[in-house]
Amino acid sequence: MEKSYVSVFLLLVAISCVLAKDIGKKETKETKPKLPQTLSRGWGDQLIWTQTYEEALFRSKNSNKPLMIIHHLDDCPHSQALKKVFAEHKEIQKLAEKFILLNLVYETTDKNLAPDGQYVPRILFIDPSLTVRADITGRYSNRLYAYEPSDISLLYSNMQKALKLLKTEL
Amino acid sequence: MEKSYVSVFLLLVAISCVLAKDIGKKETKETKPKLPQTLSRGWGDQLIWTQTYEEALFRSKNSNKPLMIIHHLDDCPHSQALKKVFAEHKEIQKLAEKFILLNLVYETTDKNLAPDGQYVPRILFIDPSLTVRADITGRYSNRLYAYEPSDISLLYSNMQKALKLLKTEL
Repeated sequence: MEKSYVSVFLLLVAISCVLAKDIGKKETKETKPKLPQTLSRGWGDQLIWTQTYEEALFRSKNSNKPLMIIHHLDDCPHSQALKKVFAEHKEIQKLAEKFILLNLVYETTDKNLAPDGQYVPRILFIDPSLTVRADITGRYSNRLYAYEPSDISLLYSNMQKALKLLKTEL
Repeated sequence: MEKSYVSVFLLLVAISCVLAKDIGKKETKETKPKLPQTLSRGWGDQLIWTQTYEEALFRSKNSNKPLMIIHHLDDCPHSQALKKVFAEHKEIQKLAEKFILLNLVYETTDKNLAPDGQYVPRILFIDPSLTVRADITGRYSNRLYAYEPSDISLLYSNMQKALKLLKTEL
């Protein structure tokens, strides 16, 4: 029993690259971004991405589409690996068109976006009623909203789940 | 006296395209953005732009550079005209490198960014001590942070003013 605990612990450490709060320490090491920078940041250049959380909430409510928020970091290999799989997965890219999309490298001040902490990669869904879908989770019990590249099918089915809105219009 | 009031009023109406709050009404008319979308949105593709207000505040404090926030709208001809002049003005583009830069089409929830209302185009400077430089204003008494293309020299000198930090490091 103790053994399985340890292996789960190691896995959790592996997938939670770095606490987003730690970005500050790495500011000086940061490499210059490729110009001009894109809103997609490589998560799907052909998709329409919102810029800010405020914009995303507004558009989600207004369009009655669920919001998908991807927290990631440029210098996190786990984020990069997930991004590659996400961008190359045709069905996911197609399904993503049905969402309001936002990818963030900086945390917002909204604690609702960190139900179990600030880590990356972390994917959350918000219903157009502006409810965080805390029930839509990945495979890791201590990092509920983390996904590894091998979890891409689970992410796809979670996207399908998110498209079933909590409150549908009458 | 009454006459001059009227002309000032007309001018103010002319430069304040649309209240940012009204965006909602125009959502359905919106044209599809050019893909991939850039963070610069044409305000200077060779400059480094931050994505969100949180990121901008963090970077400003961290780098001790003032923050310049441009509120604008894609379908506002006054914003577009100012953008053209801003992007083509070599001295401004050069000086802009000394700032943390953010351009927004959606308002944040921070009321400090709308000292005299939510209108576009509207340019505000924030000191790295995270103080809004409400003293750095344009030419229009009722829209203090609005600039017309003909005000570009004033904007340039206001940028120079903003670079003189309120609190310099000892």
